[in-house]
Amino acid sequence: MAEANRQIVLDRLPAGDKLGPQHFRLTEGPRPSAGEGEALLRTRYISLDAANRAWMQGATYRSALESGQVMAGGALAEVLETHVPHLKPGDLVFADTGWQDYAVLPAKRLRKLPAMEPVTHLMSVYGIAGLTAYFGLLECGRPKAGDTVVISAAAGAVGSIVGQIARIKGCKVVGVAGGAEKGRWLVEELGFDVALDYKAGGLRQQMKEAAPEGIDVYFDNTGGEIFETCLFAMKAFGRIACCGAVSQYDGAAPPHGPRGVPGLIVTKRLTLRGFVVMDFDDQREAALNELQAWVASGQLKVQEDIIEGLENTPAALIGLLNGENRGKRMVKVR
Amino acid sequence: MAEANRQIVLDRLPAGDKLGPQHFRLTEGPRPSAGEGEALLRTRYISLDAANRAWMQGATYRSALESGQVMAGGALAEVLETHVPHLKPGDLVFADTGWQDYAVLPAKRLRKLPAMEPVTHLMSVYGIAGLTAYFGLLECGRPKAGDTVVISAAAGAVGSIVGQIARIKGCKVVGVAGGAEKGRWLVEELGFDVALDYKAGGLRQQMKEAAPEGIDVYFDNTGGEIFETCLFAMKAFGRIACCGAVSQYDGAAPPHGPRGVPGLIVTKRLTLRGFVVMDFDDQREAALNELQAWVASGQLKVQEDIIEGLENTPAALIGLLNGENRGKRMVKVR
Repeated sequence: MAEANRQIVLDRLPAGDKLGPQHFRLTEGPRPSAGEGEALLRTRYISLDAANRAWMQGATYRSALESGQVMAGGALAEVLETHVPHLKPGDLVFADTGWQDYAVLPAKRLRKLPAMEPVTHLMSVYGIAGLTAYFGLLECGRPKAGDTVVISAAAGAVGSIVGQIARIKGCKVVGVAGGAEKGRWLVEELGFDVALDYKAGGLRQQMKEAAPEGIDVYFDNTGGEIFETCLFAMKAFGRIACCGAVSQYDGAAPPHGPRGVPGLIVTKRLTLRGFVVMDFDDQREAALNELQAWVASGQLKVQEDIIEGLENTPAALIGLLNGENRGKRMVKVR
Repeated sequence: MAEANRQIVLDRLPAGDKLGPQHFRLTEGPRPSAGEGEALLRTRYISLDAANRAWMQGATYRSALESGQVMAGGALAEVLETHVPHLKPGDLVFADTGWQDYAVLPAKRLRKLPAMEPVTHLMSVYGIAGLTAYFGLLECGRPKAGDTVVISAAAGAVGSIVGQIARIKGCKVVGVAGGAEKGRWLVEELGFDVALDYKAGGLRQQMKEAAPEGIDVYFDNTGGEIFETCLFAMKAFGRIACCGAVSQYDGAAPPHGPRGVPGLIVTKRLTLRGFVVMDFDDQREAALNELQAWVASGQLKVQEDIIEGLENTPAALIGLLNGENRGKRMVKVR
């Protein structure tokens, strides 16, 4: 049976405005089939990431998105049909299927994922979010026990794991998130020492009280004002892990960067390091083993935010950019 | 004979305005004498550094300067009187004497410098400028042969040495300086591959032509627009050695930082590292040996800019902030 392939197309790129439902449209095409060296995949869970929005702004670590293409995005997908030896029907893979029911991709770079219950953990703690948190904090932030670690977008998929790993490593953990409720969750459920509410104003003063001796490691997911506040609050020889700049993605490019650059980088002798999780592929297995041990022992809690239905994917991304989610947001397609 | 001690006092701190002669006054006090554990020093050459101006803006790696104090500054000085075993009259030291004929300082941290002809090399290539260039480029920039290295304030004390070390290491060397004449000097005398004139405008386009494949290492002495231009021109996994931000020192604090921070740091996976030369004190001897070998073999040219007379020190600093100097500027006091 030639089942239809529902697709969400990026109808037009936002031009300096905030992302809205008007930028997308749902369409249907025929279900594709796999040629030589290819695999036909059925999308099961689509990953929602702030980076999806950044891809619309221009070339990043991937080329820029274009109007009229199926919206790009990573997903947990099941192999339906393939003719390569390293994959068979039923295998799960993580792939850039885009926002659609079915996708055909070159099979060569697809890697079979282990069986696991719940499979959604392959998208959160054992997926890009968990590995990003792990490598960004440990390789770029290099925290020592007793260090004060500050995390922005602390209630998000990456931030909520960064804070817990920092706690496991014996650090004092300060999370910055929007709203008192998220803050309570970070402290009461995830064991953060302090949560700061950037929406409440006076972040600089809040930071002074939370980290009176300054910040050793800042894990930056937001850029913008929170970055600037932390830059001024860094200790000498502090490290900033630059993971993302979500405050800058949804709208026009900001006319200026944060103050204090590069003056404070010099006088405080800071190290800033930008990274993308793929840079650490060679250490992936060891990281997954450590994450699994923390989850098994209950030291690391996994928070997932699962929305049903392919048709709801645009709203799920728009909501994520507005800070709706706690933990890893994904859309269950089937 | 109780010879007088001429002193240049920082009469009032500039308040957001450019530094001018009106901020200083010349005064005279009695020649001091050394107490227990102290040394009486006679200033011979005062070092002029952009950092002198930064100290007026607020606390940096040292506490902020205050109105009414003798202007702070490092100098090559001769020991006149002391009662500690590791120093004797006639020894040369580098010390924060301030801008005056005589100074009394705790002897403990003074380190006898080797005899050398000309002694001014102790202030330039074998002083803070040379070591800053050496460690900043090699430790923070980590250039490899074939890399494209860009240096701002390239005709200054530090920049002119950074570019030559980069050339010795087999890099393609691009210097940014003000004016065509400085540029010719960098290329023809110091062996830079290209010089860009930021005063001529269109720096972004000039950079594209000079480094069409992008920048591997940027040695930043200026901050501001040149920093921003280089940030956009960096290659993936490039390194920025943050040495200073002279474009930001002489005037009001800038309302914003350069664009692209931290977004480009993430997507290009850059490492930015701020440093101060004292951070590398443990590697000082090895660095000096290497610098001496390069000077002896003629690979590294030493450019000094010596101005006569303590009374001319304010004008010498003001001129340095306006980009007057080539190489290491100092004032000969006696």
